[in-house]
Amino acid sequence: MRYLKAVIAYDGTNYYGFQHQPDVPTIQDELEESLRILTKEKNKIIAAGRTDRGVHAQNQVINFKTESPIPLGNIRFAWNNCLPNDILIKEVAAVDADFHARYDAEGKIYEYRILNQSLPSVFKRNYTYHITDELDSAAMAEAAEYLIGTYDFSSFQASGSNVQTTVRTIQQAEVVQQDNLVIFRIEGDGFLYNMVRIIVGTLIKVGTGEWKVPRMSRIIEAEDRLAAGPTAPAQGLRLIMVKY
Amino acid sequence: MRYLKAVIAYDGTNYYGFQHQPDVPTIQDELEESLRILTKEKNKIIAAGRTDRGVHAQNQVINFKTESPIPLGNIRFAWNNCLPNDILIKEVAAVDADFHARYDAEGKIYEYRILNQSLPSVFKRNYTYHITDELDSAAMAEAAEYLIGTYDFSSFQASGSNVQTTVRTIQQAEVVQQDNLVIFRIEGDGFLYNMVRIIVGTLIKVGTGEWKVPRMSRIIEAEDRLAAGPTAPAQGLRLIMVKY
Repeated sequence: MRYLKAVIAYDGTNYYGFQHQPDVPTIQDELEESLRILTKEKNKIIAAGRTDRGVHAQNQVINFKTESPIPLGNIRFAWNNCLPNDILIKEVAAVDADFHARYDAEGKIYEYRILNQSLPSVFKRNYTYHITDELDSAAMAEAAEYLIGTYDFSSFQASGSNVQTTVRTIQQAEVVQQDNLVIFRIEGDGFLYNMVRIIVGTLIKVGTGEWKVPRMSRIIEAEDRLAAGPTAPAQGLRLIMVKY
Repeated sequence: MRYLKAVIAYDGTNYYGFQHQPDVPTIQDELEESLRILTKEKNKIIAAGRTDRGVHAQNQVINFKTESPIPLGNIRFAWNNCLPNDILIKEVAAVDADFHARYDAEGKIYEYRILNQSLPSVFKRNYTYHITDELDSAAMAEAAEYLIGTYDFSSFQASGSNVQTTVRTIQQAEVVQQDNLVIFRIEGDGFLYNMVRIIVGTLIKVGTGEWKVPRMSRIIEAEDRLAAGPTAPAQGLRLIMVKY
């Protein structure tokens, strides 16, 4: 038996998220089906982050096992030939038998892209959240700094979630502006369900001036979903990197 | 009767070009159908440039006439509500009765985007031409300068075309590199069929070093399609501006 990991990118627009669901296209289904063509086996794929419907990945990490004798150097090319062009295998490598893409991940980086201009963009519509109100990206950057540290992030967890602990550590949380694009980048040891999108919804409230910067601190302290802003839409979100 | 023009953008990925064709989706069909919902009339739309299948537009110009009393200030918003989100009305304005988006155009600017890196991009796949061979964008820029002026551009016209004159004037032809993106920008009084895409196919031959820069001059002089490079694919091409 061989144990492999792969780094992949995908445009999540046309998928109902990473994880298999009956009767709808998912990234996992596409990967497993293409791998079945390649290896003639039924391979099960594990991903570092099970992204939601419409969310993208620049460097998602997956692992699987196979008995296929196909040489390591040939897998990437052959596998890409079996995949639609909105999913890309960037790299394939051998790993230890006990490697688990999700459990072994020590951190993840996500980016969220906001297009801040009066008109929507036909070219960026699937990769950004379009906001017409002028955003103060400096205020958003200041508010984002409150997130850095180890806190109970219950305020930024979708209601109805059920996890053992809502404490997470955030190493980096910054907002940069490139022309009409406001990009939020966050690095943490893990993220609660919808956490990045709720943080972005909250930062936008600060960006428009509706909420003042120091309110961010009270929102974290509240440990209450109702204290935070709305959940920003999926298409602005992108998994940038998984750290091991 | 009212005479109107509109500036529009579209992502051409899912369309068989601008112009109406039976049984396949086109930009013209979408515009005319949405306008019919808005005005209850059968409006015919004329475009400055009838872009091909997969080609995009950032600022295409169209004109049409209507007897609808809908106030000018409301048309853009209402019309966009009737359109899919890969077509956008950016601006609507009143024009003289004799305005013709195509015949009155005095010049057009096109851009062609090449993604020059080893891996393809799932996010840019519909908006760039992916080339893995390293391109010398400075050599391409030098070769592009030969295009500036008034010449018979037969070498860059799709074979089988039939136009009164193949003489065109090019005011600007430049190549700029932004990270892994090589962008060709050309401004002319008009373009022959597939002209920009054949020019790009030729510039790529120069960029890879297969052809030397001065060969560009001989290719123009040849007035023969066989002298030029291949036709670059549609998805890299974008109509940027129409001048009146």
